[in-house]
Order: sequence, then C-alpha cells, then structure tokens
Amino acid sequence: MDKVNITEKLNLFSEHWNPKIVGELNGQHVKLAKLKGEFVWHSHAHEDELFYVIKGTLKIAFRDKTIILNPHEFLIVPKGVEHKPIADEEVEVMLFEPISTLNTGDTTGDLTQVVLEKI
Amino acid sequence: MDKVNITEKLNLFSEHWNPKIVGELNGQHVKLAKLKGEFVWHSHAHEDELFYVIKGTLKIAFRDKTIILNPHEFLIVPKGVEHKPIADEEVEVMLFEPISTLNTGDTTGDLTQVVLEKI
Repeated sequence: MDKVNITEKLNLFSEHWNPKIVGELNGQHVKLAKLKGEFVWHSHAHEDELFYVIKGTLKIAFRDKTIILNPHEFLIVPKGVEHKPIADEEVEVMLFEPISTLNTGDTTGDLTQVVLEKI
Repeated sequence: MDKVNITEKLNLFSEHWNPKIVGELNGQHVKLAKLKGEFVWHSHAHEDELFYVIKGTLKIAFRDKTIILNPHEFLIVPKGVEHKPIADEEVEVMLFEPISTLNTGDTTGDLTQVVLEKI
C-alpha cells in the first residue's frame, strides 16, 4: 500500500491518448492520461466514465452540446452516451472507470489501446 | 449530465467529518469532505477506499505505519485494513468508494453519518 503522487506519475510519460493505470479499487481503475487533439466519437455500453481535469481545458462533445472542463472540474459520462473528447492544447486528466473499460468504447480502431501500462 | 466544480462544492459546507456526495457511477460514489482533528480507528469489511487530497496535509495512521498525503496525492486503503485519518489542520479530500461505504466502517458511534447529503 503506497500513496500515488499524480504529478510524479504524469512526468513518467508524454504520449497522448494512452491512459496509464495508477490505481485499482472495487473493480475500478484510476488512470492518468494526456490528451491533445480530437479523439473519436464513441460510447461505452456498460461503463460510466469520470473525467477529472488536472491541467488544461478539456472539451467533451456530445451530439447535442459540448461541455468544457477546467482544472478542479469533473464530468461523469453515463454508459451508452456518445462523446468525443477534444483538447485544443494538451490536457492532463484523471479517469475513474471500471476495469473493463476500453478507451475507444464501441469504436475500435487506430486509437484503441487494448493493454494499458501500469505506472 | 452536468459538470462538477470541486471548489464550488467545497464552498457549500464547512462541517468536518461529514462527506457530501457529488457524483455516482458504476455503483461508486464520489464524495467531498473536510477533515480536522482525529477520526476513529475503523475498517471497511467490503470496500476499498480512495482518499485524494485537494488541500492540506492528511495523515492516515495504520497499525504499523503512518502515510502522509499532500495535494495531488492519493491513497487506496484496501478493504479490511484498519486506519485512522488525522488532520492537524483542516484538510479537503475527494473520496471514491462504493455506495455501500459507511464513513466509520465497523466502528459505529457519534461520528457515524448514516445518510449523506448530495450537493
């Protein structure tokens, strides 16, 4: 049982759209990710997903609106809801979601990360 | 579906040791709490518990050691592990744990909060 320092963990990687696992509890993962650019439209059939912004400004586009998240703000995207994260500048986020969650949900493709690294 | 601003939510209450619910996903709650002083020794038989420090310095005492958490640091306390949070000065934390989690775990008493407020 060790504490996790978010800042130190974020310094360990630089690639975008490749979440790293930094904790596990009750069947859920805590992940850190760096995002830049536009992701793909996707949804998760079985998993709600929490985005907590550490640094930067994250836009999450939905079919009917866009929500803008700044540091100290989070959004829970319910299962089944199509969304597309957009980061005009680099964004650092913490994610809480079930272990089963695939980053691209139902839209598998070049951006899909099947095996995530634990750091 | 609305975003949650942690700072705004923390401004809505001042009492200590009374977590507020600010989000729910996948059978888990996201909570905010203000802590000051010493809590009681307790454990949660069935729930792992995540403490993420927003402001201040939180000590979490275990039977064999004490872990000190500063802002941007989190600790996952596994189910069944006795612990006692200690805040020499006021601490603001975000908690992530199953909906079933009782704040005092197996040590019910004056500090037990049976019904938590959603803010």
